[in-house]
Amino acid sequence: MYHHVKKLMFTVEVGEPDPRFGGMLLEQFGGANGELAAAMQYSVQGLNCEDPARKDLLMDIGTEELSHLEVIGVLARSHLEPLRKTGKAADSDPLIAVVGGGGVSLNNSQGNPWTADYLKISGELEVDLRSNMAAEARAKITYERLLDYTDDAGTRDALKFLMSREIAHLKAFGRALESMSKGPYEIGSLEPEKDMVEPYFNDSTGDGELGTDHTGPWNNADDVKIVDNPAFAELKSR
Amino acid sequence: MYHHVKKLMFTVEVGEPDPRFGGMLLEQFGGANGELAAAMQYSVQGLNCEDPARKDLLMDIGTEELSHLEVIGVLARSHLEPLRKTGKAADSDPLIAVVGGGGVSLNNSQGNPWTADYLKISGELEVDLRSNMAAEARAKITYERLLDYTDDAGTRDALKFLMSREIAHLKAFGRALESMSKGPYEIGSLEPEKDMVEPYFNDSTGDGELGTDHTGPWNNADDVKIVDNPAFAELKSR
Amino acid sequence: MYHHVKKLMFTVEVGEPDPRFGGMLLEQFGGANGELAAAMQYSVQGLNCEDPARKDLLMDIGTEELSHLEVIGVLARSHLEPLRKTGKAADSDPLIAVVGGGGVSLNNSQGNPWTADYLKISGELEVDLRSNMAAEARAKITYERLLDYTDDAGTRDALKFLMSREIAHLKAFGRALESMSKGPYEIGSLEPEKDMVEPYFNDSTGDGELGTDHTGPWNNADDVKIVDNPAFAELKSR
Amino acid sequence: MYHHVKKLMFTVEVGEPDPRFGGMLLEQFGGANGELAAAMQYSVQGLNCEDPARKDLLMDIGTEELSHLEVIGVLARSHLEPLRKTGKAADSDPLIAVVGGGGVSLNNSQGNPWTADYLKISGELEVDLRSNMAAEARAKITYERLLDYTDDAGTRDALKFLMSREIAHLKAFGRALESMSKGPYEIGSLEPEKDMVEPYFNDSTGDGELGTDHTGPWNNADDVKIVDNPAFAELKSR
Amino acid sequence: MYHHVKKLMFTVEVGEPDPRFGGMLLEQFGGANGELAAAMQYSVQGLNCEDPARKDLLMDIGTEELSHLEVIGVLARSHLEPLRKTGKAADSDPLIAVVGGGGVSLNNSQGNPWTADYLKISGELEVDLRSNMAAEARAKITYERLLDYTDDAGTRDALKFLMSREIAHLKAFGRALESMSKGPYEIGSLEPEKDMVEPYFNDSTGDGELGTDHTGPWNNADDVKIVDNPAFAELKSR
Amino acid sequence: MYHHVKKLMFTVEVGEPDPRFGGMLLEQFGGANGELAAAMQYSVQGLNCEDPARKDLLMDIGTEELSHLEVIGVLARSHLEPLRKTGKAADSDPLIAVVGGGGVSLNNSQGNPWTADYLKISGELEVDLRSNMAAEARAKITYERLLDYTDDAGTRDALKFLMSREIAHLKAFGRALESMSKGPYEIGSLEPEKDMVEPYFNDSTGDGELGTDHTGPWNNADDVKIVDNPAFAELKSR
Repeated sequence: MYHHVKKLMFTVEVGEPDPRFGGMLLEQFGGANGELAAAMQYSVQGLNCEDPARKDLLMDIGTEELSHLEVIGVLARSHLEPLRKTGKAADSDPLIAVVGGGGVSLNNSQGNPWTADYLKISGELEVDLRSNMAAEARAKITYERLLDYTDDAGTRDALKFLMSREIAHLKAFGRALESMSKGPYEIGSLEPEKDMVEPYFNDSTGDGELGTDHTGPWNNADDVKIVDNPAFAELKSR
Repeated sequence: MYHHVKKLMFTVEVGEPDPRFGGMLLEQFGGANGELAAAMQYSVQGLNCEDPARKDLLMDIGTEELSHLEVIGVLARSHLEPLRKTGKAADSDPLIAVVGGGGVSLNNSQGNPWTADYLKISGELEVDLRSNMAAEARAKITYERLLDYTDDAGTRDALKFLMSREIAHLKAFGRALESMSKGPYEIGSLEPEKDMVEPYFNDSTGDGELGTDHTGPWNNADDVKIVDNPAFAELKSR
Repeated sequence: MYHHVKKLMFTVEVGEPDPRFGGMLLEQFGGANGELAAAMQYSVQGLNCEDPARKDLLMDIGTEELSHLEVIGVLARSHLEPLRKTGKAADSDPLIAVVGGGGVSLNNSQGNPWTADYLKISGELEVDLRSNMAAEARAKITYERLLDYTDDAGTRDALKFLMSREIAHLKAFGRALESMSKGPYEIGSLEPEKDMVEPYFNDSTGDGELGTDHTGPWNNADDVKIVDNPAFAELKSR
Repeated sequence: MYHHVKKLMFTVEVGEPDPRFGGMLLEQFGGANGELAAAMQYSVQGLNCEDPARKDLLMDIGTEELSHLEVIGVLARSHLEPLRKTGKAADSDPLIAVVGGGGVSLNNSQGNPWTADYLKISGELEVDLRSNMAAEARAKITYERLLDYTDDAGTRDALKFLMSREIAHLKAFGRALESMSKGPYEIGSLEPEKDMVEPYFNDSTGDGELGTDHTGPWNNADDVKIVDNPAFAELKSR
Repeated sequence: MYHHVKKLMFTVEVGEPDPRFGGMLLEQFGGANGELAAAMQYSVQGLNCEDPARKDLLMDIGTEELSHLEVIGVLARSHLEPLRKTGKAADSDPLIAVVGGGGVSLNNSQGNPWTADYLKISGELEVDLRSNMAAEARAKITYERLLDYTDDAGTRDALKFLMSREIAHLKAFGRALESMSKGPYEIGSLEPEKDMVEPYFNDSTGDGELGTDHTGPWNNADDVKIVDNPAFAELKSR
Repeated sequence: MYHHVKKLMFTVEVGEPDPRFGGMLLEQFGGANGELAAAMQYSVQGLNCEDPARKDLLMDIGTEELSHLEVIGVLARSHLEPLRKTGKAADSDPLIAVVGGGGVSLNNSQGNPWTADYLKISGELEVDLRSNMAAEARAKITYERLLDYTDDAGTRDALKFLMSREIAHLKAFGRALESMSKGPYEIGSLEPEKDMVEPYFNDSTGDGELGTDHTGPWNNADDVKIVDNPAFAELKSR
């Protein structure tokens, strides 16, 4: 059961509204890596989760993301304020001005409606935790970039708060995964076929505008065998 | 530049076609965690990548996934063969039977068209590698589940091959990330605010059908401070 | 700010799981007129609302709908339980069985992902209240139909609770609208042109399989003037 | 059966083409509350309707909306004319300039393709009429806002005509509903449970940036019982 | 301006309703190559068209397709009738039974909402005519396949009518294109570079399960030069 | 099986990056008629094709389109370069700047994600070839228009190369169709009903802003019978 309290998780104080930046902020409101996506991904995973401790974790963070959604919504709405008055500003985003009356809606920065296609919910706890760690990394970098585009002190404070919380969540999900005693490359319960894991297929070769062949720890290791140009090898069929 | 060779990466031999299972397989052809999603995610990341060694890695694996797409496509098409004859089988999937003439199209198992909303492309290499690791984990578990639904020996061999390759890719992406000298919880270049990372907001509390509060390494650690019921605390505003 | 309590708003007790019915229930989880749509529509309207009393109303009901989402999610998940075991049941919904591991995701009964295109958020309070009343009516009728498809006593109790709450919300939104002193056909602030409101264009005429012309209070009233076949008025036909 | 006459329902005379405004107008051509949405919603409801008199009403208005679609299409196309010439104007909308050759397509003002997800078709006449009334209210307010963004006399005349017709339709749908002898809060045929309708759950409480608790006719009435903080009732918090 | 007449273009007489077939028919109601797609593609092209004679043609056929939409809608609705009664039939399509009350909506046979992404509207008349010819070919083959799945005489008559009309339209569009004095491979106004048109890049080579290299009139002709394996040639860059 | 070579099919040399034009170019990267659409349409058709010679053709061209995708991707990325630096340029496209870090993603020029709804795959070879010819015509005209919006010599060279290849493909598909011994208006195997093909329904009549009736080879021919106003034939109007 949910309860709402009429306070923001982080107080938002916008100096000079900047509708262009308000539009950018919508990316974190109704965008692919935004707060609604985070809230829904974790909460629905939590609903499906049968490990009581990690279910609690997923619900804690899923609920916090709803509070983030509210913070970013108020922040975006403050920056979009000029779109609530008739005039030139509306040109920049007719969907917000004409359809939404200058308010926020669950669209991204380009007006695309939020879709559950953004979510990664596998019904397998350890896999979900990996998806969540990646999601937090994407959200962190998005906030970092947003900070590049505003000088407004109050806005920056709120974005730093939200950005920092993504790292807090990344750590929490990471520790929840570590404590499940799965190796970093161990997924599910079926063992992969060893001889099918060893080959590294060098499928992109040659030397040109797009670079040249390289080695690194991923294809130069004891447990890896490079297979050059497999498309052209006389592949031994099974 | 791409080249195609008229051989499959893994020979597909289907015993008894099973159109229901063919429909399930489409999940890995045109579905959210399927082979086209993998191919496009890694190849477009590769196109954007400015680290020459990891660009090569992304192109190698992106190209391999195109070959996987072809394997799964031939496999699904073999199982869907009965839909190419008039009759009862078509009931199970009119979209395939009537619109596609019994062939494969880039839809998932429920007929939803493939969409680039499935992709996670951030333009930040370390973040992209994390997204790719999570994607491989999801693909591995999907193949594992598919194996539960078929007894056909040839089909199982192909699925095991594809499943094993996901682990190979997971390892490769993991090593490429490790060798970038970033801590597991270090993302981008802006430091998070320490006092905003420490709190663990206990936002889901109480005791009922949905469980009770738990602790674990994620909220019971030296660098974590549990904040109970923050919505109700006299939150110190900034 | 949001808080979650680990109890359901209505206790769910499913006797015999019925995965077909579980699939139908998803319509109210991730479908067009379902609980997420209600929660998001009212909460985002509330965020945009500048009338403090009705903002409170929107937040009260928006938050309740999140609790409904949780009830319907647990209910659907209980009915989908057989999909979490390998076997025949999975045929009926590969997306749930293979991709979601038998858990719930934010899709509708046909596997379509939830989209913000379902929402009606105009940024104009009186218009939003009308959209909400219509939304509650659609939700009520959907629950009524769902009740036709299950005999399970515990399931029926939960559905009746949810159905009854839709009527409670319909009344609340209706009274909030009535108390705004707008006539039922008065929208916004611009007066419509009287002579453009009076005509009733009889654009569908004739007599055949699709019926015949009728009159009713909508075109037979003192303030209505029927215009027959306007497409052909003053027209020299070929 | 449909017939088309080569006249517009309302003559469109655009003075100075304004491609920015042309883009805004697309909202009513291919947008969520636009004329295609109205035409399709009413016409498909009409096709499903088994009450002969209201079926006629739905077909009359559904057909009129097709004529409105044409008016708004010609209007938008006139304003987009500069995009049919090479030059700076194309920057504002590459989709229209490059893909559509400067013509109109069934997209909204942000280039999103029209989708049937916009439609509300329940197959229950009284519910459909309520959805239609809400749809007309949204369309009216959208035209009202569009009028704020243009000074062109011919354009304003056409928009006023279309706006006024929305009120005419709102009235017609309203009277069709009134004459069905259903109370305003009576939906379908199943009675809601009285004791589940009475409670008003005060799910959003507290006092802060987002306001404070309020009462109004919706929660302060003889047939309403306020339940404060239901999530915390009978709950031992941690 | 549009007018509707309460007759069907082709009288529909369904013997035994078959809800499975009704679901298939929706493909031509709200599907990618269905009647709404045809009606909208031609009518919007007509609205954009500046050649008065072919504008008339586009409007004639666009309007006829609206009448086809109505025929297929009544036909589908007749076959879906059992879904309007509670019971087993609803299992096959909960979206239709529960959400639509057993009526038709603008979805395809798998419940995907109709989208303007199906349309091909280029704003270039000769290109649009080519897109329309291809669209008619797809619609013809879809009707041909549908005929394979029903024995109902009245249904078959209606489908044959609709199928035959697609050929009539194909011919009309073809003649409209021929009379524009463009060669079959001449598009737009810019000449292609001759030396870039001549090469046939043999990009798929080898010999395996996917076949072997072939020649035909497309790569064995006086004006074609086969370039084998261009990815590996020391391509002379321009 | 696929192989990638680290060279571009056509060397891209951009003089002055123009982010606005970069956004336009995305139309051919992730847009409806762009290179991914072409690559996927032909390759999946090839996978389904049972005519070995034309299967080879489809794979040859499908593979070439992947190489085009890469060329257009590098070209767009070069023009978007200023979006990879903080500043004013980002305003024009927050999705690219903030979410994609200034790189390319599989969206069109308005930020809409690529979708398989763009594809036309019928499973009937002759129909697929017609769809492909229309697709090449649309792609050719889009390149022609793009050429209108850039003066950059290197960009123009690349666009001319890609544009010319579309004509090469159009010819190849055309010859592959011609050599199948099907008349231009012959589709599938069922004969249309002659008396249903002959009528030309004059469904749009009258004389007004939208033109007047015209004749042309499509309705004025020996095998065509014009039927005027079919909706009103034998109809007693009200």
